[in-house]
Amino acid sequence: MGSTGDRIAIDAMGGDYAPEEIVAGAVRASEELGVKVLLVGDPHKIEACLKEHNAGSNLEIVPADSVVEMDEEPLTALRRKPNSSINVATNLVKEGRADAVVSAGHSGASMAAALLRLGRIPGIERPAIGAVLPTQVNGKQVLILDVGANVDCRPKFLEQFAVMGSIYSQHVLGVERPNVGLVNIGEEECKGNELALRAHQLLAENPVIHFAGNAEGRDILSGQFDVAVCDGFVGNVLLKFAEAVGSAMLQVVKEELPKGTRGKIGVTVLKHNLKRIKQRVDHAEHGGGLLLGVNGVCIIGHGSSRAPSAFGAIRLAKAAVESRVIERIQAQYQQSVQQAVASEN
Amino acid sequence: MGSTGDRIAIDAMGGDYAPEEIVAGAVRASEELGVKVLLVGDPHKIEACLKEHNAGSNLEIVPADSVVEMDEEPLTALRRKPNSSINVATNLVKEGRADAVVSAGHSGASMAAALLRLGRIPGIERPAIGAVLPTQVNGKQVLILDVGANVDCRPKFLEQFAVMGSIYSQHVLGVERPNVGLVNIGEEECKGNELALRAHQLLAENPVIHFAGNAEGRDILSGQFDVAVCDGFVGNVLLKFAEAVGSAMLQVVKEELPKGTRGKIGVTVLKHNLKRIKQRVDHAEHGGGLLLGVNGVCIIGHGSSRAPSAFGAIRLAKAAVESRVIERIQAQYQQSVQQAVASEN
Repeated sequence: MGSTGDRIAIDAMGGDYAPEEIVAGAVRASEELGVKVLLVGDPHKIEACLKEHNAGSNLEIVPADSVVEMDEEPLTALRRKPNSSINVATNLVKEGRADAVVSAGHSGASMAAALLRLGRIPGIERPAIGAVLPTQVNGKQVLILDVGANVDCRPKFLEQFAVMGSIYSQHVLGVERPNVGLVNIGEEECKGNELALRAHQLLAENPVIHFAGNAEGRDILSGQFDVAVCDGFVGNVLLKFAEAVGSAMLQVVKEELPKGTRGKIGVTVLKHNLKRIKQRVDHAEHGGGLLLGVNGVCIIGHGSSRAPSAFGAIRLAKAAVESRVIERIQAQYQQSVQQAVASEN
Repeated sequence: MGSTGDRIAIDAMGGDYAPEEIVAGAVRASEELGVKVLLVGDPHKIEACLKEHNAGSNLEIVPADSVVEMDEEPLTALRRKPNSSINVATNLVKEGRADAVVSAGHSGASMAAALLRLGRIPGIERPAIGAVLPTQVNGKQVLILDVGANVDCRPKFLEQFAVMGSIYSQHVLGVERPNVGLVNIGEEECKGNELALRAHQLLAENPVIHFAGNAEGRDILSGQFDVAVCDGFVGNVLLKFAEAVGSAMLQVVKEELPKGTRGKIGVTVLKHNLKRIKQRVDHAEHGGGLLLGVNGVCIIGHGSSRAPSAFGAIRLAKAAVESRVIERIQAQYQQSVQQAVASEN
């Protein structure tokens, strides 16, 4: 594929399988997606990994001398290690040398670096992490946000998540008129905890989004909602639960299906169909979450990312860059910020 | 099976498929479980259903002249309809004419009736609904509570859920030393929202339970926890989500597996193994939740209960009665109530 001109910076040292698997995913992305990948981290280690591949010219190493470890407190670590890979990678976006930053390392550090270096979009009170899950309807996805950036939320935050999520759903996922659902415990508007009750009102009155009502647990993956908003506590528990239930189910199928002689024969016959089931259900192909609400594209990958996830995260970064989703959110909130400034003067 | 002497009152009019499916489940329970079932509701309708079955003598009809509808406000409805089926059924427990009450109707009304008629166990601040889910480990279950009784919780409530859940796990589910997990967004004790952070401390210091730390979304069904505590908002979303993910996965398997000629052959060969997968994954067999913290056994079934779920709910009621779980919770809290009274004098 020819070059698209997109430049993606990736923290090559971040994640359980870094740098080997991250570099492998980056090599594939540079070849298949036509993007330039900036590999940030220890040059010797990255070079050693690159030697394993027949890497093309669409890759560049940007040196960083340290890594934020998983058990470090994000802000302290970023201050102590100004040349850590996540700091350097995020700075590349700030300085206009990259269009997006991707990391599978410490997610708190990735968020903190994005907030400190790129800053919040004016008008947005709290950035949120959005994650995309497959639904029961083949080919249809749902964007859930927030999945972990804000564990305690005010109703206003959820309203902003809904606006950002709608813009994302429309321009990155290609949904013409995204249906927004509020994650809740009942369909009726009188249902919910304090946060949900007050958020419901704000969502119902917001003219920018299409609010389709409450989404109960059973409705989230039904395909009737394109965007589901909730606080980062609920979203994080849900996301990790969904991933685990998927693997648990595959596990049951793997255990029970080949039992007995008939089982062994049947599984052999069904090999291809079983592979398709795994692909529809497995979450490894989904690259991670997008941090929405900062001035730049920032992808937060799974800590357990291997090459396919790193590739998926870079593909997601490319889609976000090309759809100009950040600029669209900035434009949406520019008006409200200007109005607020005008009313103060 | 011979009679066990247990008497279970069931709201025959409650639920989407009442009274037909409820009566069918009750007839089966009276035969297979050796319990006496008191069918509460419209005598004519119940009799008509009973004629469909070859019902034995272990069934009795208790008349009630109305039903709380799904869209009614619980407290108002219970006041307006003192002879509604849920009120009459709960009263049977209060008056000692039944050992447990089961309903698949309006769950808010069932809870309100239990609170008003049976009352809270002294020392318990908020009753909670516990639901049992299968885990990845075959034969091992996890009790999640609260799944909907309390949408906004204080840390102390979660601590009491953990104590009640441990007693339930030990005596009803037969777990010798139940591992309690706090549903949270990370393993470390510094992780969580305000509620989780404060609940963590209380759980860690409680001498009655065995606290095994935070349970992330991915850990809830791993089999490492026997009891998982959370507020009723998170629990309700999780429970309904789990049920939906299970069906969604079965749906994918059903769609993809028979594709093509090889698919059709394979599915025929694997018929029995597929049935076993459905049984391990399907939630229809699990009868519902137990309301823990009131002075009596009260089972809250699914609104969509059919005969197998009604049967499952009665079986659960029987297990709760025979394990004396309510008396054990009462005894656990009696001491603390006495201490509180003593310190006041």
